[in-house]
Amino acid sequence: MDSSAAALLAGDLTGVAVFAASGGALGVAKRLDWFGVVFVGFAAALGGGILRDLVIDKPPVAFYDWRYGTTALVASALVFWWHARLERMRRMMLLLDAAGLALFTVTATIKALEAGVPPMGACLIGMITGIGGGLVRDLLVGEIPVVLQRDIYALAALIGAVVVAILTRLEAVTLLNMIGAGVLIFVVRLTALYRRWSAPRAKPM
Amino acid sequence: MDSSAAALLAGDLTGVAVFAASGGALGVAKRLDWFGVVFVGFAAALGGGILRDLVIDKPPVAFYDWRYGTTALVASALVFWWHARLERMRRMMLLLDAAGLALFTVTATIKALEAGVPPMGACLIGMITGIGGGLVRDLLVGEIPVVLQRDIYALAALIGAVVVAILTRLEAVTLLNMIGAGVLIFVVRLTALYRRWSAPRAKPM
Amino acid sequence: MDSSAAALLAGDLTGVAVFAASGGALGVAKRLDWFGVVFVGFAAALGGGILRDLVIDKPPVAFYDWRYGTTALVASALVFWWHARLERMRRMMLLLDAAGLALFTVTATIKALEAGVPPMGACLIGMITGIGGGLVRDLLVGEIPVVLQRDIYALAALIGAVVVAILTRLEAVTLLNMIGAGVLIFVVRLTALYRRWSAPRAKPM
Repeated sequence: MDSSAAALLAGDLTGVAVFAASGGALGVAKRLDWFGVVFVGFAAALGGGILRDLVIDKPPVAFYDWRYGTTALVASALVFWWHARLERMRRMMLLLDAAGLALFTVTATIKALEAGVPPMGACLIGMITGIGGGLVRDLLVGEIPVVLQRDIYALAALIGAVVVAILTRLEAVTLLNMIGAGVLIFVVRLTALYRRWSAPRAKPM
Repeated sequence: MDSSAAALLAGDLTGVAVFAASGGALGVAKRLDWFGVVFVGFAAALGGGILRDLVIDKPPVAFYDWRYGTTALVASALVFWWHARLERMRRMMLLLDAAGLALFTVTATIKALEAGVPPMGACLIGMITGIGGGLVRDLLVGEIPVVLQRDIYALAALIGAVVVAILTRLEAVTLLNMIGAGVLIFVVRLTALYRRWSAPRAKPM
Repeated sequence: MDSSAAALLAGDLTGVAVFAASGGALGVAKRLDWFGVVFVGFAAALGGGILRDLVIDKPPVAFYDWRYGTTALVASALVFWWHARLERMRRMMLLLDAAGLALFTVTATIKALEAGVPPMGACLIGMITGIGGGLVRDLLVGEIPVVLQRDIYALAALIGAVVVAILTRLEAVTLLNMIGAGVLIFVVRLTALYRRWSAPRAKPM
């Protein structure tokens, strides 16, 4: 599975870049200095994966593999300099963010299952890794995390993680199937955005 | 200690249910959607235990034992649907919350001591596990954690953890003694609530 | 390297005391009760080191070595009682805080390198440990972390960590060189404070 390992790494790093950009953009909006912008970008890009690796008791790739840190650094630094341009790219950002959610959720669920976590726990780890970056990003700048308030964001991740767990149980873990699970997350998330789906709220008492 | 292990598990899961309910109720009050409600419930119920297991280097039960996740899920989903009724049960909730604090503190202190943590560290881990869920819950929705502001909440946990550590040093770890330590936390917490005890604040300068 | 181990421990505990004091002082300013004051002091003093030890997969000294907890406890309790006096000592506090930043960054970078983390990851761990206490402290009381907003704080830590990593690569890890790296962080931080240096912000669009 060498080519699939390479595909996963490429996907993972794309996710890192996208989340770093979203964190950096929020830092710019909050008027942080350039170090704060890069730091929030870093935390958004690598926070979910650090928690994942701690939970499955592996050395966190964020610190042990230089490609992760470098990717996060470059992406958030670029946002600092080019943020005016990014504003015009808002649609593109939402697309990339959905892609990052899909990639992180799928790779984290697979890594957790491979580390021997039972299916239900692996799905939770997959979902938390997918949404974790956005959570940390929003908490750092003092906001209630968007993921808790809006849309079908976390639910899309959970659905995809469950599909990965079922495919693994059926011993049908092929690169193609994993891409399918990622595309499912991506499509659910974008459809929810486009149709303004959103989960129900409790009625006021 | 088979029956006592079962008692501890029952106690632990009761604590999970109670904290999930308190997290869910806060999520409803903050007008989160149902996913946000369940997520805050989850974090409140399982956050303290995840930190505990990471620190004592065990696989986090929240991800490795399906009963924990399921209990948290069911309890916070119930709150979402029944929150009007829960409002009327506020007294009951405070009782259950104190029970959860007592159970989590005692079981975490025991687990830490068994994992070879020295007594002082085990007491801190016990206290942090007991109060951790409420901390995470409040941080997620952007509030200064209640535990830092009011009452004898954390102190009750710390007293109970110290009692557990002393009993362990005296080789008097029986199920009955552990229940006694839990009841102590429960009673201190409720007495503080009832009498409106509260720790002193620093005088304004 | 027995005497240097002792020097590092002394330095580490000084850092703990200083950060505990800064956390306690913020707790007093936020009108927390004495338990809240001590808790924020604790989190500020030990939070960065706990994350460091989890990442490099060592038992967290905060829980396994009683000297850390005791130092944090004493320092934050003293702040609770003496905070009026501390106010007058603001200059001294800034000096000590810069010293703590320097000490934590250097010791954490060394510990990470010794644990086999690659240089870039070790620098990140060193920086995060140095700034982590202040981050946790500010998040706990609901503020955007100061470190994200102002000054050359985190950058000073990063520069020092890189110097430590380079010296290690050159096999020039002597007590004197490590003190030099610490002094460099200290001086950069204080010069930035004194000259009101601060990293650039993104221009408004």
